[in-house]
Amino acid sequence: MSTLELAPRLSADAFRQELFERGLLLPTGVDGLYGRSAVFEGLVDAVDRLIGRLSVGDGAEIMRFPPIMTRTGFEASGYFKNMPQLVGTVHCFCGDDREHKRVLSCSPAEGGWLAAQQPSDVVLTPASCYPVYPIIAGRGRLPAEGWLVDSSSYCFRHEPSVDPARMQMFRQREQVCFGTPERIRAFQSHWMTRALEMFRQMGLPATTDLANDPFFGRPGQLMANGQRSQRLKFEILVPISDPDRLSACGSFNYHVHHFADAYGIIGADGEAAHTGCAGFGLERVALALLRQHGFSPEAWPETVRATLWPQS
Amino acid sequence: MSTLELAPRLSADAFRQELFERGLLLPTGVDGLYGRSAVFEGLVDAVDRLIGRLSVGDGAEIMRFPPIMTRTGFEASGYFKNMPQLVGTVHCFCGDDREHKRVLSCSPAEGGWLAAQQPSDVVLTPASCYPVYPIIAGRGRLPAEGWLVDSSSYCFRHEPSVDPARMQMFRQREQVCFGTPERIRAFQSHWMTRALEMFRQMGLPATTDLANDPFFGRPGQLMANGQRSQRLKFEILVPISDPDRLSACGSFNYHVHHFADAYGIIGADGEAAHTGCAGFGLERVALALLRQHGFSPEAWPETVRATLWPQS
Repeated sequence: MSTLELAPRLSADAFRQELFERGLLLPTGVDGLYGRSAVFEGLVDAVDRLIGRLSVGDGAEIMRFPPIMTRTGFEASGYFKNMPQLVGTVHCFCGDDREHKRVLSCSPAEGGWLAAQQPSDVVLTPASCYPVYPIIAGRGRLPAEGWLVDSSSYCFRHEPSVDPARMQMFRQREQVCFGTPERIRAFQSHWMTRALEMFRQMGLPATTDLANDPFFGRPGQLMANGQRSQRLKFEILVPISDPDRLSACGSFNYHVHHFADAYGIIGADGEAAHTGCAGFGLERVALALLRQHGFSPEAWPETVRATLWPQS
Repeated sequence: MSTLELAPRLSADAFRQELFERGLLLPTGVDGLYGRSAVFEGLVDAVDRLIGRLSVGDGAEIMRFPPIMTRTGFEASGYFKNMPQLVGTVHCFCGDDREHKRVLSCSPAEGGWLAAQQPSDVVLTPASCYPVYPIIAGRGRLPAEGWLVDSSSYCFRHEPSVDPARMQMFRQREQVCFGTPERIRAFQSHWMTRALEMFRQMGLPATTDLANDPFFGRPGQLMANGQRSQRLKFEILVPISDPDRLSACGSFNYHVHHFADAYGIIGADGEAAHTGCAGFGLERVALALLRQHGFSPEAWPETVRATLWPQS
């Protein structure tokens, strides 16, 4: 029995402190940015492989991405219009010797050494499905049965927090589905059922619920309401840091034809395709497991261990 | 026998085109930024595991990092002073509803939607050992025998190229050694020997050679000369894209007390510690294997397969 299970009122900050003290996460001085220990990486890897085993028969095309994507691909998505507060753009120095000398002597008020940084043609990836859409669009019309992609990458969200479940960089494993509205709704529903069963096997008390994206500002409230009334987004929720608030460890999204319009993804019938995605935040699932079963995976219940490490 | 082996004069651009056509890398429209197929990821993973098997007895502390690091940690390193052309800084939007509305209507000449992006407190990681130094410095004096870290992360270098071996984002697996000059020189020499044997087992015709970092501008030439005359940097080189030029797949570096001075890393004797690192570019090793043995790993020589996948 771990200390954690005896302390259900542990705050997010205290949970983070425990993770630091046990060496599972390494502090960097920036909230939401942490190094990972071998044990923590082993958990993330085990969760990733579990998702792979559950979906191996789906016939998805596997794509893996580095944590940046093209600026043109990002711009087409409309993400900055909807969630500007989360975006990270990548800027570079393009000057010569002389300009370099100049910026090295810039005062902080003048912008310091960053004074001449210019936007590059890449941005940090906000969700691992974003690099997929331009690739699928570039292939021309979808086949009659649609398409399925299994995508993964590190993602960036600018939302510094003491809550270890709210990282600025984290890994997402997503399934991305392209096809008719019926196919996407079936995909969404299937993954919600599958995720609940997966979390049950991991010994995590999960529930699913209707949700909305964190749209920005006052106009964003309208978008959130619309998303909810159309039942487009669901999340799988478990207790992680704050015992009084559940954290989303995954989401199941129906985009209608938003991404098809944005990128020009055409279905077999010549119309804009519908899309959906089912994604998991791997670090959050790892944290939920540590919170639920204690800080020593080797002492976890045998059923949970057999789910995560079936070969061993 | 693959097409590639029959075409030793294949240019970097033609090699990249082959990788695209065979679906091993997925083009994004930005040079140096690619999606990865299941086969390509399998290769990267196999090389990563091979390095893990070779070094498992070294007793290194494993640390894994997301692809960004703190700006303060980056600034302390002096990297922008030496290699400004490679740096990627991360910028964010910190305004309100009104500011958001304003930037959305900015013209391209005014900076467009990026007009209000401000430097954040994180930058893209230039090499996977960089996040390690502040962590080790924060622990106080090194033990008498020094310390060893096994680090890995995605890294960013702003050097767009049609050469698939020159990616803007790629993974580095690095061993980072802290201690006396003797320990670092022995570490450097040991990893050069080990790397040559590792490449031999992978069937890659590798050599090692003295090298220097790509220091910027005219003052950089002096630094490069100094680095060479002190024999601080060596690389392991194999043919990848350009048959007339070898590509570095790894490097073995003695930093003297540069990082110890920058971060305040103190040895057991109370003096600035010496440091060194031995790192491999995982994508480059994967590309070297594809170039040498052909595009179908299942058809590679049995000895090479046994090195990369000993269990199967």
